[in-house]
Amino acid sequence: MANPLCIQLINPNTSLAMTEVMAQTARSVAARDTQILAVCPEEGAPSIEGHFDEAIATLGVLQQIKAGRDAGVDGHVIACFGDPGLLAARELARAPVVGIAEAAMHLATMLATRFSVVTTLPRTLTIARHLLHQYGFERHCAALHAIDLPVLSLEDGSGLAQQKVREQCIAAKKSDGSGAIVLGCGGMADLAQELTLELNIPVIDGVSAAVKMIESLAALRLTTSKHGCLDYPLEKPLSGRFAGLNLREHYV
Amino acid sequence: MANPLCIQLINPNTSLAMTEVMAQTARSVAARDTQILAVCPEEGAPSIEGHFDEAIATLGVLQQIKAGRDAGVDGHVIACFGDPGLLAARELARAPVVGIAEAAMHLATMLATRFSVVTTLPRTLTIARHLLHQYGFERHCAALHAIDLPVLSLEDGSGLAQQKVREQCIAAKKSDGSGAIVLGCGGMADLAQELTLELNIPVIDGVSAAVKMIESLAALRLTTSKHGCLDYPLEKPLSGRFAGLNLREHYV
Amino acid sequence: MANPLCIQLINPNTSLAMTEVMAQTARSVAARDTQILAVCPEEGAPSIEGHFDEAIATLGVLQQIKAGRDAGVDGHVIACFGDPGLLAARELARAPVVGIAEAAMHLATMLATRFSVVTTLPRTLTIARHLLHQYGFERHCAALHAIDLPVLSLEDGSGLAQQKVREQCIAAKKSDGSGAIVLGCGGMADLAQELTLELNIPVIDGVSAAVKMIESLAALRLTTSKHGCLDYPLEKPLSGRFAGLNLREHYV
Amino acid sequence: MANPLCIQLINPNTSLAMTEVMAQTARSVAARDTQILAVCPEEGAPSIEGHFDEAIATLGVLQQIKAGRDAGVDGHVIACFGDPGLLAARELARAPVVGIAEAAMHLATMLATRFSVVTTLPRTLTIARHLLHQYGFERHCAALHAIDLPVLSLEDGSGLAQQKVREQCIAAKKSDGSGAIVLGCGGMADLAQELTLELNIPVIDGVSAAVKMIESLAALRLTTSKHGCLDYPLEKPLSGRFAGLNLREHYV
Amino acid sequence: MANPLCIQLINPNTSLAMTEVMAQTARSVAARDTQILAVCPEEGAPSIEGHFDEAIATLGVLQQIKAGRDAGVDGHVIACFGDPGLLAARELARAPVVGIAEAAMHLATMLATRFSVVTTLPRTLTIARHLLHQYGFERHCAALHAIDLPVLSLEDGSGLAQQKVREQCIAAKKSDGSGAIVLGCGGMADLAQELTLELNIPVIDGVSAAVKMIESLAALRLTTSKHGCLDYPLEKPLSGRFAGLNLREHYV
Amino acid sequence: MANPLCIQLINPNTSLAMTEVMAQTARSVAARDTQILAVCPEEGAPSIEGHFDEAIATLGVLQQIKAGRDAGVDGHVIACFGDPGLLAARELARAPVVGIAEAAMHLATMLATRFSVVTTLPRTLTIARHLLHQYGFERHCAALHAIDLPVLSLEDGSGLAQQKVREQCIAAKKSDGSGAIVLGCGGMADLAQELTLELNIPVIDGVSAAVKMIESLAALRLTTSKHGCLDYPLEKPLSGRFAGLNLREHYV
Repeated sequence: MANPLCIQLINPNTSLAMTEVMAQTARSVAARDTQILAVCPEEGAPSIEGHFDEAIATLGVLQQIKAGRDAGVDGHVIACFGDPGLLAARELARAPVVGIAEAAMHLATMLATRFSVVTTLPRTLTIARHLLHQYGFERHCAALHAIDLPVLSLEDGSGLAQQKVREQCIAAKKSDGSGAIVLGCGGMADLAQELTLELNIPVIDGVSAAVKMIESLAALRLTTSKHGCLDYPLEKPLSGRFAGLNLREHYV
Repeated sequence: MANPLCIQLINPNTSLAMTEVMAQTARSVAARDTQILAVCPEEGAPSIEGHFDEAIATLGVLQQIKAGRDAGVDGHVIACFGDPGLLAARELARAPVVGIAEAAMHLATMLATRFSVVTTLPRTLTIARHLLHQYGFERHCAALHAIDLPVLSLEDGSGLAQQKVREQCIAAKKSDGSGAIVLGCGGMADLAQELTLELNIPVIDGVSAAVKMIESLAALRLTTSKHGCLDYPLEKPLSGRFAGLNLREHYV
Repeated sequence: MANPLCIQLINPNTSLAMTEVMAQTARSVAARDTQILAVCPEEGAPSIEGHFDEAIATLGVLQQIKAGRDAGVDGHVIACFGDPGLLAARELARAPVVGIAEAAMHLATMLATRFSVVTTLPRTLTIARHLLHQYGFERHCAALHAIDLPVLSLEDGSGLAQQKVREQCIAAKKSDGSGAIVLGCGGMADLAQELTLELNIPVIDGVSAAVKMIESLAALRLTTSKHGCLDYPLEKPLSGRFAGLNLREHYV
Repeated sequence: MANPLCIQLINPNTSLAMTEVMAQTARSVAARDTQILAVCPEEGAPSIEGHFDEAIATLGVLQQIKAGRDAGVDGHVIACFGDPGLLAARELARAPVVGIAEAAMHLATMLATRFSVVTTLPRTLTIARHLLHQYGFERHCAALHAIDLPVLSLEDGSGLAQQKVREQCIAAKKSDGSGAIVLGCGGMADLAQELTLELNIPVIDGVSAAVKMIESLAALRLTTSKHGCLDYPLEKPLSGRFAGLNLREHYV
Repeated sequence: MANPLCIQLINPNTSLAMTEVMAQTARSVAARDTQILAVCPEEGAPSIEGHFDEAIATLGVLQQIKAGRDAGVDGHVIACFGDPGLLAARELARAPVVGIAEAAMHLATMLATRFSVVTTLPRTLTIARHLLHQYGFERHCAALHAIDLPVLSLEDGSGLAQQKVREQCIAAKKSDGSGAIVLGCGGMADLAQELTLELNIPVIDGVSAAVKMIESLAALRLTTSKHGCLDYPLEKPLSGRFAGLNLREHYV
Repeated sequence: MANPLCIQLINPNTSLAMTEVMAQTARSVAARDTQILAVCPEEGAPSIEGHFDEAIATLGVLQQIKAGRDAGVDGHVIACFGDPGLLAARELARAPVVGIAEAAMHLATMLATRFSVVTTLPRTLTIARHLLHQYGFERHCAALHAIDLPVLSLEDGSGLAQQKVREQCIAAKKSDGSGAIVLGCGGMADLAQELTLELNIPVIDGVSAAVKMIESLAALRLTTSKHGCLDYPLEKPLSGRFAGLNLREHYV
């Protein structure tokens, strides 16, 4: 690790405010040598609260992955709790790619035998449930909770959403028999450390968790496997606005 | 069902030849009153052979879903074996949406206690595995096989891919202890009936299966639930090339 | 489908009233060319509310399957929510066989990410749970509810059971986070369409769902696999009252 | 256990020879005070090799259960590897009911971390797979093998089937990494002890295992729960040949 | 079984009072010919209420297993609900080894389709959950309950813990829809029979269940498989206080 | 992270050579500020190749955890592929505890959709299988392989074991369809980087992975949850050689 590491932090939505919140959290935990390159798509959805929003966001994620790859970053973080486009991004990337839901959930299982999730809108619970299933952590999750406020309420300056997150975490600690809480939205990144202190249990933010995962993988000289289904996309003439996403020469 | 039914058959890739193959198969099984509106995206990937291709294709699927919705179709079929964008499409749609992998797998479980899958490239097996898992059919699938030829080889006129599919089906019948075979690519749609006759076991094509599922749901007056996570996407200003995908007025 | 289709609707219990309710529902959704041949065993249990009742009913189902096969029907529906004798019936049948629990659950997963079940007596919940497990839909079912009235209360003309079903469906929609409801008794078949309208979510009846499944399979020229464990029963001298159920000549 | 225990050993098929083989094995392991009452249905199938045969056999099992209950037996063994009618029998019985597949599998998990199954015809493997799943032992079973001979070949006096069982057990020990073998047919009951000695691993017969389970439950004064779904069948007028199976007065 | 059977009942904690309670229960259900050799470690933890306590207790269990093996006992019972050291003990033992959680859970599944567990401190619920998972009984367990009193409160003579167990069992019967209850602590062994009578459902104690399992295995001449991962530990020079635990000569 | 971090690397076996190999690997990937305190028990087993060896090793692990805690280390690594005593260690520790199997498996799932495991003796495969199950990675593991040489052959200087590991990894890459390989023994730690280069897929060593996990958790100020089942062991008078392991004053 003689050279500084550059981690691309991709906010899949177009909110600059949320990008900034996550960038600050990422920088606060990154190693001294790590540079955080925080980006978000120029076009897309201002927040991600469902399967449709995720599908829109995925395209922005992939374009950022390509830009990051061309810029030679050492790793990519997908900073939305649904980990949109994760496997597609891994195909496209040369460096490792880590999602924030994934990172937070993995760490949670090392700190407690069961964890709870606190997220924003109830309709996103299905996404969280699918991720638990895909990652293998169904049995490690005691309960899922939603504060029933949209993602962008975390950026409205009123502090209401933050207060609801706090209350929900306290309630979850009491009711679920969980030893840890996973925050289910990138926009909650700045709450984890103070809630950890106040609640006296690990309250885990995926943004900072993913940054450390990338740093770990880089130090171990491990990167996305190009053997099998995560190999670079097959070269084919992507047409229209997708042209340029799939250029074989960039792979070598 | 006094009025004729209009089913939008969406080929998520841009291959017109494959769209036509699937349209013919769809029409051959559809009810007399059913009209098949076969479409494919104008821009995107010519074939879908991995997570990245699926992510690209999903956008095309969603734009077709919106166009179909605006045109008042009675149901949508996503005609690629990975069922790309299925849940996002269901959010956007008013009418029912059925994927061809889903449709074929469901029917297979009603005809045999275990089935095998025969698909194109090995790298797509992961996608099939994830679908089995998501739909709940892991234990119903005895084995997954790949002919190790790309999707478009099914359209090259040589018949080589078709021959390999046939051989693989015969081998699977012999080795897997399965009672049925699911064809793992929309481009194989025209093979199912003759292989069913030749092998004397159900060889199931998802395109025709999905058409019948949509007809069934329409007859039952059942459509995608708008209660919960498949409700219409929240209204938010999608920017750039995504503008227009998310217009609330269309929902009512 | 030039010729009209004949679907044998088998009510596994001996209640003629329930057979008639289901037959009417079946006819109301069947294609114009489809004939519904509604039958029930002459001997057996008047209602099916447990494992024992199911075992009794299974024999009646098998005798009807044989009769239907001899009559050349194009498909068989087992119209009791426990799908009693389903795999045995598939062995005996030449045509496809679909259970109503199975059909309703399959369709539910295409309309919502999670569904709830509303059934009659609490003791039947174990059967529903086993079916969810066998079909692979455990994770797709959010909750199971019982109205705590026996099956035949649906036929007593008082409307009390129907009212309880309605209330339970409304409560389930509110509490379970499910997008759809599966009605857990053939005797509720006539309630699905009005509850779907009133609750504004899919409320699914398995009788009509199974009829459409059979029509779909027939249109696809798919039938029960005779390769493997669903092959015709091995020829053996069934003795006593079972004689005649297993005549090899009928298979050819 | 002052009084002698009477265990009803129910062979679900009509083969007297097999009933006798199993009775001898049962008696050889039973406690001194235990009496084995070996029975089989008067009418039914001579062997059970599929879902259909199981459905036929279930009725015979239930009639024997009722007869045994009326005779005051202390427990019932269902002596066919598919455990046909197990839950229905438990509803009907006052005393405990144990299936031989169940008993053998349970014991196997206490002797080895993984076991293999050796059974008769390949078409019965689906039944064994379903039982593993229902009982929770999917992960404890390393492999399932069939000797590809019918059940009654075990009674033909040639010894061929026995030889094939032996060879398959030896092969399974070598290939599966299993520590124990479960014999998948009641007709193999007399082979377990000598194969255990020859192979030097536990080769488990369910008939003897089930006898000991019943003795254990009797000693512990534990019997089938009548709270919930295994409560006695609801009283209802069973008609025709089923009359008499469901008499409430017998329950008290 | 000409010779009397000797079963070593190993209480993994150092409480002589609890050892005595369990010994009495064991003797009350054992066959006339069975001798119960009740032991506990000289050094260790007075009660076992967590993963750490289990790790301490495991060493005591192994030393008792070795002593029992040297004394030629016919089977070993590990009499703590977490079944501490079960697989290690099976490696070391020549005779069968059965844990009390295991034994109780196995029997419960033969008496009811679902059971509940009532144990002592909430922190031990994780252990019970892991066991359910390891043994395959996750779906058979409807709920887990803790009386929130430490293990040794069962020995304080006040009867308070016993009263709480009783209340919790009554509540569980009412709320869980379970047909049976498994007592989740060896110190509750003496409560099972009276609670079974009072609640009129099987309330199962693992100590007595395990004794009968050992008797059953002995009668069947089945013992721990020495083929594969339960073979005797590889001979290696264990140093310090562990010397003597692993002497190859004892195996022959 | 102003202050240097001290990570206690606990080799659960008594082999100084293996401790040294792992320490070197750990130091080669640790951050500049991280100090690796490599220890192994004074007494115990020279290698760990089964459940029994693990039970012995667990006590040594716990004593080292306590010593490390008293010395104020910032994290503990349990450096044996079975992760012996992991949950017990977490109870005892104030700082985070990570096992090497766990760490390697978690990272593998972020680099490939499926991984293979290559370990030493076949009898340890059961342990690996149980860990996959406990951590939720069953479906992420394509296959498990053993080189069939004991752990200490990795330290005999002949290079034979290393050669077999290499061959097995090459074979696994070819046969399993896995994108990554997890090395199943701490003694293979020094092979990961060169095999990663040679095979051109991630070959993951858990020792270095666990070191990075601890560094990550420390940077995130996250530590083992003391709410629930991983809270400090309840204070109780551990007797004999266990005295001193459980001193409440050390917790504060």
